[in-house]
Amino acid sequence: MKLLLLFVVLAVLSTAFGSYIESSVWPKPAVFSKGASVVPVATFEFKTLGLSESDSTVPITLSAAYSRYNSMIFNHKSKTGDDNIARVAKVNVAVDDYSEAYPQLETDESYTLDIPAESTGEIYITAKTVYGALRGIESLSQLVVFDMDVKGFVISESPIHIEDKPRYAHRGLLLDTSRHFEPISSLKSTIDALSYAKFNVLHWHVVDTQSFPFESSTYPRLWMGSYSKNERYTQEDIQELVEYGRMRGVKIMIEFDMPGHAASWCAGYPEICPSMNCKQPLNPASNLTFPLITSLLTECTGNKVGGGLFPYSLLHLGGDEVSYSCWETSASIKAWETENGLSGSEATYEYFVDKAAGITRNQARTPVQWVEVFEHFGSKLDKNTIVHVWKEKETLNSIVSAGYKALLSNQDSWYLDHLDITWDQMYLNEPTDGLQEGSDPNLIVGGETCMWGETVDPSDVGSTIWPRAAAVSERLWTPKEQIDTVDVATNRLETFRCLLNQRQIAAAPVTNKVGRFAPREPGSCYVQRR
Amino acid sequence: MKLLLLFVVLAVLSTAFGSYIESSVWPKPAVFSKGASVVPVATFEFKTLGLSESDSTVPITLSAAYSRYNSMIFNHKSKTGDDNIARVAKVNVAVDDYSEAYPQLETDESYTLDIPAESTGEIYITAKTVYGALRGIESLSQLVVFDMDVKGFVISESPIHIEDKPRYAHRGLLLDTSRHFEPISSLKSTIDALSYAKFNVLHWHVVDTQSFPFESSTYPRLWMGSYSKNERYTQEDIQELVEYGRMRGVKIMIEFDMPGHAASWCAGYPEICPSMNCKQPLNPASNLTFPLITSLLTECTGNKVGGGLFPYSLLHLGGDEVSYSCWETSASIKAWETENGLSGSEATYEYFVDKAAGITRNQARTPVQWVEVFEHFGSKLDKNTIVHVWKEKETLNSIVSAGYKALLSNQDSWYLDHLDITWDQMYLNEPTDGLQEGSDPNLIVGGETCMWGETVDPSDVGSTIWPRAAAVSERLWTPKEQIDTVDVATNRLETFRCLLNQRQIAAAPVTNKVGRFAPREPGSCYVQRR
Repeated sequence: MKLLLLFVVLAVLSTAFGSYIESSVWPKPAVFSKGASVVPVATFEFKTLGLSESDSTVPITLSAAYSRYNSMIFNHKSKTGDDNIARVAKVNVAVDDYSEAYPQLETDESYTLDIPAESTGEIYITAKTVYGALRGIESLSQLVVFDMDVKGFVISESPIHIEDKPRYAHRGLLLDTSRHFEPISSLKSTIDALSYAKFNVLHWHVVDTQSFPFESSTYPRLWMGSYSKNERYTQEDIQELVEYGRMRGVKIMIEFDMPGHAASWCAGYPEICPSMNCKQPLNPASNLTFPLITSLLTECTGNKVGGGLFPYSLLHLGGDEVSYSCWETSASIKAWETENGLSGSEATYEYFVDKAAGITRNQARTPVQWVEVFEHFGSKLDKNTIVHVWKEKETLNSIVSAGYKALLSNQDSWYLDHLDITWDQMYLNEPTDGLQEGSDPNLIVGGETCMWGETVDPSDVGSTIWPRAAAVSERLWTPKEQIDTVDVATNRLETFRCLLNQRQIAAAPVTNKVGRFAPREPGSCYVQRR
Repeated sequence: MKLLLLFVVLAVLSTAFGSYIESSVWPKPAVFSKGASVVPVATFEFKTLGLSESDSTVPITLSAAYSRYNSMIFNHKSKTGDDNIARVAKVNVAVDDYSEAYPQLETDESYTLDIPAESTGEIYITAKTVYGALRGIESLSQLVVFDMDVKGFVISESPIHIEDKPRYAHRGLLLDTSRHFEPISSLKSTIDALSYAKFNVLHWHVVDTQSFPFESSTYPRLWMGSYSKNERYTQEDIQELVEYGRMRGVKIMIEFDMPGHAASWCAGYPEICPSMNCKQPLNPASNLTFPLITSLLTECTGNKVGGGLFPYSLLHLGGDEVSYSCWETSASIKAWETENGLSGSEATYEYFVDKAAGITRNQARTPVQWVEVFEHFGSKLDKNTIVHVWKEKETLNSIVSAGYKALLSNQDSWYLDHLDITWDQMYLNEPTDGLQEGSDPNLIVGGETCMWGETVDPSDVGSTIWPRAAAVSERLWTPKEQIDTVDVATNRLETFRCLLNQRQIAAAPVTNKVGRFAPREPGSCYVQRR
């Protein structure tokens, strides 16, 4: 143990004092070459290239990012004011299409980044879309370090050339705000962190059995299911949050889990539940249930592509863990089944999830449903369904073999509430491992790491999510052949974790054996006992 | 247990749905009366009264607070823009002395706050100093709630009249940045939270055995004792932090702990340690030791009242837990003792702490030293010393009886790293309990709750400090006779904890049995299982 500590201390000294910490970007870019020049820089002067005269205003997404990143990167005073002026670096941003349309699954996030070896040179970022440019600016931000010896900022290994694009289109974090309410400030902080790790989706599991904090404008009693009047999201809050995410290239995929996990819906509308003693799954026999669902989803979608509160083309309908007992014990539901030619609860479950998915498709959205719908109904499902795997990863193979699109969140590797899953186990969860010959790996749309909220509130949400979620972000972003070994990645992730801390994200020590655990002993952020 | 949960649920429903959550300010004001009118308000229009013509610019401390609090309080969009205009509330701030001089021990923090019962009326805050006005604005901010039903902000129990002032002059949090480095962003966040709880001192235990992150301009090799080049505070960072604190009424009391807890000093200057194999206590026999200390302290004090990096009149010299073994085993130190007529290590210890305190007094500062100096030297100490009690509280009585000033931080009640101390135990630690007849309680200058850093870094510093530290803030602020019972205070502290969460402070659940513990089960922030 003592010897081990000595090695750690030596490692700290050599990385921290011998030279700069190795330049690194998390997640690792597809192509990344670097040199050996130390280029001083005091601030970035961003220039947006190629805007036509009729369109010469810099898109707000970019101009806001320029100012946000400048204050985030240059967070120490340099030694002298005069010096600074000489070391302003010009950053030229060239985007093919400056549209600020809401990002979608197919939005191109590729970018290139070129940093010259001389401080007189200029930096170039090119991208197809403004959202790709945001990824390039994030990478640039991770390459600037403050040199305490000269009291100035530097890019330490120039020239740098990066060509980068994500491996998967949908890279998300599920956050549950039903078991505990997360204030808007906490959700914004989570979105900040997602953008640092180049995630592009916040999967908002907004309601569940325990509480319904979401404001519906058409069914205003729904949020009577919230924990308290203060623990609610207004439509105005939601709009602000969605725009906050868009500005950072983070889409929000809303989930209304149904027909199970829905007891909180009954607080405002008891008639959509089997009874107040047996609240879920939702009551398929009520005349109110599907009109209410249709209306609620219409608020989300605006009934058109890119409309409504949540413009993302994917909308999650849950569908998991449906227990039939409240249906089986309700005489009126049994009678309704008979009337409608449904042979029993299994048929009713299929009827429900199919009907909800149909409503969603009619509103220009692709429904996402948890893996149970595939387990129960297999190839009877409409092909325009994305199946979200949370149980055994093996099922992914069956789903893809059957020609369905899928999202991966297998709980044994990517559930953040499983505190015993360490970052490296998350890192090694390769989506295509175990896919059979002939299956189309392109049917895997992406994946998500899941933060269920039973023991998570604003006090520990940051340290439970980070840094482990970052392991998933690299797995989903970086080409498979570029993924580091755990040993190599550990140093890089420690550096990224320290950066998250500097950016006010409460990421826990990387080498923790248990998620969100406190640091075990005094020591540096950059190298900790393995 | 089920019955208990039911009561909790009923309590949530009655407080959260039946009416507004009871108006409360933490810490509890000395005089606080309220009515029953709900006054809508959309934003505050602050007006600073009584500035003379020659002095008509609003002090930056206030103007910055106006803007900071407006964006912090009014953090939801109201339903309609038109409504807002009608509901702007005028807040008149009248301060006797608009000086922005650095706050000191004797700075008056009293204020009054009056909120009328009609929305056409105007709010008044009066104070003796700008720092008192800040306390008044903080209280005002805690009285505004967003009403989700009408989508607008209200003050729910007007008219409100508050007359308030702190019980103790020095109300602090010790934060240790040697065992783990806290980035400037983390220290700023801590200062934010301190100001919300009306603490007025951040006791910065900046260096210790493990690391020396502090930049000295006169002994620039000292910060070679840092964990890494990145884990350091530049003088520019420190200046910025001290001003950040001043703007929020939070002074920084710096501590250089000596002669023990000082091994990290040797990394840059081995000659001030007994040897590289036996590093501490600092070497009293070296020709460099006291010149270096003098010079380092001169950076802190500027050699004048209100000067240097740390203008606060109190400066902490540590002095705790000095083990003599490195002195005893050093032939050169033994020889030096003989030459100087010192009878042994005990005399050398006295020589050291006395000399360090003398240097400090010569630089227009009052030295604060840990209780060991009183335990060892008792009434031989200069009367211009503040003794800081961290061991048994009983010693406080002896110190005060001997006529010394004191700060209280007894570890059995106010050490935050003792995770088994719950908030209510912290709350019930009354400084004057056990003082003998005839002792002057006014010699108790105040107290501090202590966050030692062995298992604390940016991932858990917020949840380890809060909400428990708030219990100490109320004990130190509120008149003894106004202190609530634990039962009554629990509801108020839960409300304050939820407010901290909304303000991005990671305060843990109030009813935790172990500090910084995760929430035990799903539930509301406002009322949790006791």
